[in-house]
Amino acid sequence: MVAEILCVGTELLMGQVLNTNAQFLSRRLSALGISVYHQTVVGDNEQRLEEAYRQALGRSDIVITSGGLGPTVDDITKRAAARVLGKELVLRPEADRMVRERFLQYHKQMTENNRSQAMFTGDSQVLLNPYGTAPAAIVPAGEGKVIIHLPGPPRELEPLFVEAVEPYLRAYTGSVLVSRYIRIFGMGEAEVDMRLHDLEERGNPTLSPYCSTGEVMLRATAAAADEKEGLELLKPLLVEIRKRLGDVIYEIGEDDSGSLEKTCIDAFMKRHMTVTTAESLTGGLIAATLVEVPGASNVLRGGYVTYQSEAKTMMLGVPSDLIERCGVVSAEVAVSMAEGARKKLDVDMAVSATGVAGPGGGTEECPVGTVFLGIADREKSYAVALHLSGTRERIRTLTVKHALHALIREAEGRAVQNT
Amino acid sequence: MVAEILCVGTELLMGQVLNTNAQFLSRRLSALGISVYHQTVVGDNEQRLEEAYRQALGRSDIVITSGGLGPTVDDITKRAAARVLGKELVLRPEADRMVRERFLQYHKQMTENNRSQAMFTGDSQVLLNPYGTAPAAIVPAGEGKVIIHLPGPPRELEPLFVEAVEPYLRAYTGSVLVSRYIRIFGMGEAEVDMRLHDLEERGNPTLSPYCSTGEVMLRATAAAADEKEGLELLKPLLVEIRKRLGDVIYEIGEDDSGSLEKTCIDAFMKRHMTVTTAESLTGGLIAATLVEVPGASNVLRGGYVTYQSEAKTMMLGVPSDLIERCGVVSAEVAVSMAEGARKKLDVDMAVSATGVAGPGGGTEECPVGTVFLGIADREKSYAVALHLSGTRERIRTLTVKHALHALIREAEGRAVQNT
Repeated sequence: MVAEILCVGTELLMGQVLNTNAQFLSRRLSALGISVYHQTVVGDNEQRLEEAYRQALGRSDIVITSGGLGPTVDDITKRAAARVLGKELVLRPEADRMVRERFLQYHKQMTENNRSQAMFTGDSQVLLNPYGTAPAAIVPAGEGKVIIHLPGPPRELEPLFVEAVEPYLRAYTGSVLVSRYIRIFGMGEAEVDMRLHDLEERGNPTLSPYCSTGEVMLRATAAAADEKEGLELLKPLLVEIRKRLGDVIYEIGEDDSGSLEKTCIDAFMKRHMTVTTAESLTGGLIAATLVEVPGASNVLRGGYVTYQSEAKTMMLGVPSDLIERCGVVSAEVAVSMAEGARKKLDVDMAVSATGVAGPGGGTEECPVGTVFLGIADREKSYAVALHLSGTRERIRTLTVKHALHALIREAEGRAVQNT
Repeated sequence: MVAEILCVGTELLMGQVLNTNAQFLSRRLSALGISVYHQTVVGDNEQRLEEAYRQALGRSDIVITSGGLGPTVDDITKRAAARVLGKELVLRPEADRMVRERFLQYHKQMTENNRSQAMFTGDSQVLLNPYGTAPAAIVPAGEGKVIIHLPGPPRELEPLFVEAVEPYLRAYTGSVLVSRYIRIFGMGEAEVDMRLHDLEERGNPTLSPYCSTGEVMLRATAAAADEKEGLELLKPLLVEIRKRLGDVIYEIGEDDSGSLEKTCIDAFMKRHMTVTTAESLTGGLIAATLVEVPGASNVLRGGYVTYQSEAKTMMLGVPSDLIERCGVVSAEVAVSMAEGARKKLDVDMAVSATGVAGPGGGTEECPVGTVFLGIADREKSYAVALHLSGTRERIRTLTVKHALHALIREAEGRAVQNT
């Protein structure tokens, strides 16, 4: 079963918009066991779009389009598909009703043009869109093939795909796929790959790595007759992965929405513990990352951004002679920041970060990428030294992740190691 | 002149990686006056890649590839191109030298495979890559057409394109294009479009809008014989845009690297003023956004994240009876937060934010999206009420932008209006 992604929009070809739809669709299709061999972007040009349809239908079973379902003359996605299939677009009453309802709901004026949003080929299966004004559709394309039209805005396309298209594709492919997502921090992609290489080459379950800055996520997917059999197939694989990777796994989840910050908030909530932050080079990013998790207000009382040296003294009581003696980027200052913040807010734990994010500011003994984390709880405090590399942005992102990871390990009562 | 973007990599088709290269290249090509009609992604499959080359060369003058220049058997980008062109890959001494140097520099072991990274067709113009181990190249493809091979990682592709490929393309197209970037905050895309519609339809200079959350950027580009003539052409257009949009323009820059945070740091640096933040719903994101700008340490002394109610009292001295009387999301508390933070750090100005980011926590009189900013300087303080909508993430992002904009206007001595 092969699918192909065809994104329509001149704004993509001008680079005005980042094509997150192609990644989202590819990732979800892959989790459904459907292969994607081509992603294509074309503009609002009928001839080139028709050509793209012909080619896609020639080599793939499923063609998923995004964009071009709006009411303007530039919105040609449906018309071009109909022409390639030799069919007419007709007004579909259920789609027309939806469009009217949506305009009422949004208190917007509907124009005659908007009726075109309710036009589909007579044999299309209309997908009502609760997230916008353009209905989507599954269009039969002969020889068992289909074209699936989805709206362009990700906030419409993503939920619509999950809620309406995935059930259809699951029935279409006739397979049950069960996935688990293994999240890893503290081991690079190459090392993970080396340890698991043979497991990645098995047929069922499959194992695919997804990497982001400092993190690796593995998706393990089993094809089976039902959910229960799928889990049985996954079980020995997950045991084996745990054995080979051990401690660096911080979560095994049922979907890919996990993150260090979620695991961190969960770990503190479970233990009814409160936390604070004292940040220099990250400038508030550790706290801001934590508050992305709904429910963070039960855990994070508040945080300090002590960017200039004197702020460390004014806000947290770090002795200015300690800063002078040890340097502002030092284990001693990191510990003092964490201790000061924890006491000021009377919370269970504090994490601090001080370091050189670059591009300037590095010295021989304290080069760009030198970062100290401080951890303090009601009984003890200590520092962790990090040696990071890359751009200013990467060093800050990695610092945030190390800080969150240190909090998780400390909450779970495991020691944090110096890297 | 038509270019086409061909990204190579199974990781893109699996959705493991977001294709930022396609956007980056499209945007830069558009600024060079080169049209892009197709973006294509194919995997590490020789047959499909060769087919993609044939098609691209059939319809475009310039084919830019990204990815697949590494040393493994999966890295087939150059080999497939050579086969389509009927040429051989040979070891290019200057490329070989570069690869060896890079391995020495990175303290990495070079294997026999790495020699393949120095192989190009004999007529290729090799582009040495200071940012990674894979050299790039411009490959003549007959009839005046070219294939340009670039490495996949954005941190290599982006600077290499700007430094090595753009000068080549400028000479190749023989035109001089001069651009100015107009940054707008506080007016929606539709409104900007309505006011400038007739200007966008002129031939030279061209005017293209680029939108992101809460912001619109316009790129005005003139094609001319030289830089001076280009600026002459742009001048009346910029005057007209200023006249029609007025106050919402916060910057007109020579490149597209501008941002609210840069303008904000610049405005404070210029006036030797210092600033602090007191954040509730944004959880540190205003401060973290400011410190993204190198030089922020001259302006931002520090910041407070007062997430729980009691933190507002403990950290900033907001009277707890004020919170009880007015509610934690109120103009009064916003002002008190800003005043408290400003005094504590003895800085020239403070901005605060308190609000309901959602998804939960809204009430009838204080629905999700209700946000109050507080502004305090050495003479006065006041609040700004915002009524935002969208997801938790969007509400926080918009709050940060409104806060930065309020700081800019206040530093420049202009009043901030309630929205």
